[in-house]
Amino acid sequence: MKKLILVCGVLLLALCAQAQFSMQLPSELTPLPSNINKNGYPAVTEDGRVVFRLRAPGAEKVQLDLGRLYDMTREENGFWTVTTDPQELGFHYYSLVLEGISVADPASESYYGMGRMASGIDIPEPGVDFYTLQDVPHGTIRSEWYYSEVTGSWRHMNVYTPPGYDTATDTRYPVMYLWHGGGEDERGWAVQGRTDIILDNLIAAGQAVPMIVVIGNGNASTGGYTDDAMETFRRELVESIIPYVEGRYRAYTDAKHRAISGLSMGGGQAYYTGLRNPELFSAIGVYSSGLFGRSADAPAYDAESEIPGLLTAPERWNEALDVFYISCGQTDPRIEPTKKAVERFREAGLEVQFNSFPGGHEWLPWRKSLHDFAQRIFK
Amino acid sequence: MKKLILVCGVLLLALCAQAQFSMQLPSELTPLPSNINKNGYPAVTEDGRVVFRLRAPGAEKVQLDLGRLYDMTREENGFWTVTTDPQELGFHYYSLVLEGISVADPASESYYGMGRMASGIDIPEPGVDFYTLQDVPHGTIRSEWYYSEVTGSWRHMNVYTPPGYDTATDTRYPVMYLWHGGGEDERGWAVQGRTDIILDNLIAAGQAVPMIVVIGNGNASTGGYTDDAMETFRRELVESIIPYVEGRYRAYTDAKHRAISGLSMGGGQAYYTGLRNPELFSAIGVYSSGLFGRSADAPAYDAESEIPGLLTAPERWNEALDVFYISCGQTDPRIEPTKKAVERFREAGLEVQFNSFPGGHEWLPWRKSLHDFAQRIFK
Repeated sequence: MKKLILVCGVLLLALCAQAQFSMQLPSELTPLPSNINKNGYPAVTEDGRVVFRLRAPGAEKVQLDLGRLYDMTREENGFWTVTTDPQELGFHYYSLVLEGISVADPASESYYGMGRMASGIDIPEPGVDFYTLQDVPHGTIRSEWYYSEVTGSWRHMNVYTPPGYDTATDTRYPVMYLWHGGGEDERGWAVQGRTDIILDNLIAAGQAVPMIVVIGNGNASTGGYTDDAMETFRRELVESIIPYVEGRYRAYTDAKHRAISGLSMGGGQAYYTGLRNPELFSAIGVYSSGLFGRSADAPAYDAESEIPGLLTAPERWNEALDVFYISCGQTDPRIEPTKKAVERFREAGLEVQFNSFPGGHEWLPWRKSLHDFAQRIFK
Repeated sequence: MKKLILVCGVLLLALCAQAQFSMQLPSELTPLPSNINKNGYPAVTEDGRVVFRLRAPGAEKVQLDLGRLYDMTREENGFWTVTTDPQELGFHYYSLVLEGISVADPASESYYGMGRMASGIDIPEPGVDFYTLQDVPHGTIRSEWYYSEVTGSWRHMNVYTPPGYDTATDTRYPVMYLWHGGGEDERGWAVQGRTDIILDNLIAAGQAVPMIVVIGNGNASTGGYTDDAMETFRRELVESIIPYVEGRYRAYTDAKHRAISGLSMGGGQAYYTGLRNPELFSAIGVYSSGLFGRSADAPAYDAESEIPGLLTAPERWNEALDVFYISCGQTDPRIEPTKKAVERFREAGLEVQFNSFPGGHEWLPWRKSLHDFAQRIFK
């Protein structure tokens, strides 16, 4: 095997060059689980700041965009570093800004978000393990190609099947259709969202029923977020995705066993499609949607013109839906208009469940929303 | 839905900023399928050059690393551009170099390669459709977590199951264990390699038997490419992965129905493990391995000290193996020493099948090697 050592030498050198960010860390720093290749940085301090450090001996200017733009500082040895303000726990997208271009950091995993492959850091939340891989029976995320007559193209989805799906061949399962936010795709809930791990843990604890979760690509249209785009999404789900899933998986095929939920743009899609088709779904989850307004001073949301009858004849939805669920991060600017909308729904007699979680317009409240919503449905 | 249009306005603006690279293309340019977000660039010319163009009004220097380093040129309107030399067809990793740092290009898909998330371009090969998604029955790639006692950690693998796996519940399948190269991981064959599409097309045409393909993470050790690392890999496969797969999937559990193959480092792993454990495998595929030497003037490969008996008592392997297959790209520097090794194997009476394909040390010959090897095994 000595030859193999030799012949791989060049490759090793290349890997070392890539691993240039890795080094012995001061004891007060903890590398983040979202780092790749055993990079030491980014690392979190005991008081929740994140230290970024990278080698760029020829650089003139290196910036970090983590919601706030930070100028990184050159050290003597060719490294550039910055220590951020204390950060919220959980998952944050971020970028390096080099030559004025926002790019992914080679030290971290990249995730499809912000309309491109972006860096992410995932700051662990002490004492919270519902989205941590544990020694419980594990389901599977399956990658599927299907042809859509609606879009006239091959499209891709991820499908979570619960533990035991392959052996319980006489069992049918309920299905949750779960939608990502704007600038994301079907990788969002499968990777950033940790859907498989959250469901595995809930099912193992008996807190959620075994279910299939369909994680589709909600970007069915090139039309942005217009009525047309929403309607194309609705048709893609109803005419392409649901028939495909129910033909290929052992899914129940009635409304009682279908739920739809999503975050941000996907929350709007779940709201639009779920409330327009209450004959198809028994549960709707709307996480952090900007639908109701994006700030405390947003104009009042006009639910009745959006979904005629929703406030004047809410019985239709109360009867059809077992769960109409709305959630939002507590520091998300959408929280106040969302709360007001919930209030008006309730005043009109529309049954709605509401919850909120610490955090902004980010993946931590969305993981918690999924964790919460999944426990409420199909029961 | 008007509110939703409004509330998504900011998001749309953000997406537009990301889509800044996209614009009307001159008719002689074709955008690459590896572009994301409908970006027009990178685009390929009729004579096989690639045009890169990105907006960076504040930049002082922008470079492109596509094997060769190119200086990009500033245009008047804040765009930077470069037209490369004619490129080989198929998949190439590349980077932008900004402030001296190699980073992924936001205009393209990123892939785990070169020890980090790197950009890739995939230049279509006219008239070749074996790795193109087609209207045939599709298998599934499944994402699986398993706990390894060998590494003492949770690890991840992708598993291709052929069309019909879920419904043919009395059927067992042969299994190919398929390994990525150095600086890559289990995403390599699942994404860059297009394993599912290649197998779907082969199976539909009756050119390969339906099989399970296990796409594991070969980086089982932190020890690089030493004997120890090879042995850790071998133990991880034999003690963790094979028992996991055969416990969870409807796989045959005999050597006749197990194959192992891989590219570059993974080719070395397939060679090392397959030849040391001929009682476990009936087919070995070694694609573009540097094992035999990395250039025409490399010292002769000492097969006998690597695998004692291989040249002096080849009957053991001839009897155990239905297929011992070696391949290499025709412009890969490894081609000459590989051919010499094959010659010596044959002189010693060791039965070996050899093939080569246009291209260098890249994914196009690896896709073709998989396509070729899969047709030769389990028959």
